[in-house]
Amino acid sequence: MELLNKLGKNASDAKYELQKLTTEEKNHALCKVASALVEENDLLLRENAKDIAKGEEKGMHPALLDRLRLTEERIKGMAKGLLQVAELPDPVGEIIETIERPNGLRIEKRRVPMGVIGMIYESRPNVTADAFGLCFKSGNAVILKGGSDAVCSNIAIAGIIRQALKEEGITEDAIQLIESSDRAVTREFMRMKEYVDLLIPRGGAGLIKSVVENSIIPVIETGTGNCHIYVDESADIEKAIQIILNAKTQRIGVCNACESLVIHENIKDVLLPRLADALKTYHVEIRGDEKVRQVIDCVPATEEDYGTEYLDYIISMKTVSSVDEAVAHINKYSTRHSESIVTEKKESAEKFLNEVDAACVYANASTRFTDGFEFGFGAEIGISTQKLHARGPMGLKELTSYKYVVIGNGQVRC
Amino acid sequence: MELLNKLGKNASDAKYELQKLTTEEKNHALCKVASALVEENDLLLRENAKDIAKGEEKGMHPALLDRLRLTEERIKGMAKGLLQVAELPDPVGEIIETIERPNGLRIEKRRVPMGVIGMIYESRPNVTADAFGLCFKSGNAVILKGGSDAVCSNIAIAGIIRQALKEEGITEDAIQLIESSDRAVTREFMRMKEYVDLLIPRGGAGLIKSVVENSIIPVIETGTGNCHIYVDESADIEKAIQIILNAKTQRIGVCNACESLVIHENIKDVLLPRLADALKTYHVEIRGDEKVRQVIDCVPATEEDYGTEYLDYIISMKTVSSVDEAVAHINKYSTRHSESIVTEKKESAEKFLNEVDAACVYANASTRFTDGFEFGFGAEIGISTQKLHARGPMGLKELTSYKYVVIGNGQVRC
Repeated sequence: MELLNKLGKNASDAKYELQKLTTEEKNHALCKVASALVEENDLLLRENAKDIAKGEEKGMHPALLDRLRLTEERIKGMAKGLLQVAELPDPVGEIIETIERPNGLRIEKRRVPMGVIGMIYESRPNVTADAFGLCFKSGNAVILKGGSDAVCSNIAIAGIIRQALKEEGITEDAIQLIESSDRAVTREFMRMKEYVDLLIPRGGAGLIKSVVENSIIPVIETGTGNCHIYVDESADIEKAIQIILNAKTQRIGVCNACESLVIHENIKDVLLPRLADALKTYHVEIRGDEKVRQVIDCVPATEEDYGTEYLDYIISMKTVSSVDEAVAHINKYSTRHSESIVTEKKESAEKFLNEVDAACVYANASTRFTDGFEFGFGAEIGISTQKLHARGPMGLKELTSYKYVVIGNGQVRC
Repeated sequence: MELLNKLGKNASDAKYELQKLTTEEKNHALCKVASALVEENDLLLRENAKDIAKGEEKGMHPALLDRLRLTEERIKGMAKGLLQVAELPDPVGEIIETIERPNGLRIEKRRVPMGVIGMIYESRPNVTADAFGLCFKSGNAVILKGGSDAVCSNIAIAGIIRQALKEEGITEDAIQLIESSDRAVTREFMRMKEYVDLLIPRGGAGLIKSVVENSIIPVIETGTGNCHIYVDESADIEKAIQIILNAKTQRIGVCNACESLVIHENIKDVLLPRLADALKTYHVEIRGDEKVRQVIDCVPATEEDYGTEYLDYIISMKTVSSVDEAVAHINKYSTRHSESIVTEKKESAEKFLNEVDAACVYANASTRFTDGFEFGFGAEIGISTQKLHARGPMGLKELTSYKYVVIGNGQVRC
């Protein structure tokens, strides 16, 4: 794989250059790239039209075609995203900790770029610009492997970015694209440990599983969200219904949407009829266990339902007899993304928040808040569902590592 | 692999129990385990003798036999290690950050245990007790796969720990041992992603490579150290010699020992004769490039030498004509562990410290300081040479993750 080796070497050379850039240089370049994308609106639409035509020819699902489509509005959105990243604080160079040792050694724990980041993602072409912005601001070179459906759009976006960087006197290899859609190339990419420090897959569960199983580069898993809401016996019914409606229906195709409800049996008779009516207005299909079905008319839930991220107008419902049972059920089926309890009882909330094992645990709020902007962090490269390195919304800081800088005056170890 | 599944399930159940333990309960148990190991001195020596006998029979290298051997002293050392861990601050529950959002949501970033940690390691049986102590104090369950050469010793140590935990009313499954030495079992262990949150290999480069290539569980690479010292043209010769002698010879078989010297050509004529004399008293073999050999008599260095972690009385030497060239050479051959510059020039030091990509970068000090105790962190589970999650000495804090705890009063997303 000579081509991949070349990309790896280029990125590796670029990373040393990028880590020396000042915050001002990086921000200036991000603004330049943002302008360039808007200026090249027509080129982007033209190249995107080729991808769309190919997609239509293949009979691609309308929802996927919509994700693939660029519009003037969406191009402006990409540019705006880059300007937002320019405004975020630069994490590189932060002194995280300083230690003075009795022998006179001074140890600084300094935040540094990760180096080279690889991303493998599916259809949406705006990810190409978003990922570049975050990786660049955090001082990293990035190698992108986008979906084959978006190849013309991605080549155009990356080309515009590279040209803008060049005009700024910055190495174009800050962003490189793997254009091939050959699976063997993708597999080989996942083994480029010599050059790539971190690999982030972004897409469906199948893509993520394949990267986890095949990569020898450290991976951060993102985005699979089988999120639960547990309605405790002490819940405020009105709050519960509003939170469930929001988490289930405000946007169905996202990883922080609610997929499954866990209900204390002592509250089911009061909650379920009202909730079912409310969900009906959004055409949400309910799949419930036996006790749920004793109260409302719905489809029987299977074991499989409890483990399914529907990303659709469907919700599973399971009754339990205690907070402990709710916690155990959630810990069994959770993808460790976002889990919420609705309760007016402090002890139930504390138990749930402590014992549920997930990136984000909520009391009396919608799971939909798991998002870099909603947390006040700004743009994110994904929501991590693993426990190593970063958990939950991953922004600029999570794209960095640290090094220990030790200053002595001749110290040796006894 | 029914047995592995059982171990995984046990550990997974244990982790929920362990994360609820108070600091006092954990410390008390660690002291209890420490006493139990000393009390069972005779049992430990007896079981260890079986491993030693098997090793001698197999013609094991004396150095390896020594690593395998337990003595009364070493058993006391294990116990002392556990008492030291008991004295370290408990990282679990720390509030890393608190965020109040305009919509009234309160977000706490809380430090939590990783969950279940797996370790795969080679001969030294004391790792069994050390790893348990660190994982337990940080609230994690641990599954250990020790070297087959130490199997009787490891079973005895783990058995004593489990018994002591039981007497404390704590789940014995805080520590479990994979006793089989079947490679298929080890390979399967590396795929137990459902149960194990983090896998740490500890041992030679071959073991680590095998784990990195076969594990689908997130891995932290530890311990390979091809460490360099660069002597700048502005170096203080006396400091340089003392630092090199210390880093090369104070303990040769460790990952933070110096393996390769990079020398500015303007200082070679002054430095090398004195340095060669000093190294000779320790019987260190020098392998130098052409310019080194013009000054002193030594073995020619090959390309392979520059990439070799000798762990022996051998050192490679390479001349360069600038700090930049030194940095480039080190970044090419470094295993990203520990790298040092000896210089009296501030700009050279800053350049080196900024641009060399390693966990620990030093100015005017021995690389041998890369160690949890020397940094003031206390006991470590290994020295990470990767950039994800933890870099350098990994102590209790590095064995934890975090979760976002979000408290609302009915908030939904607009």
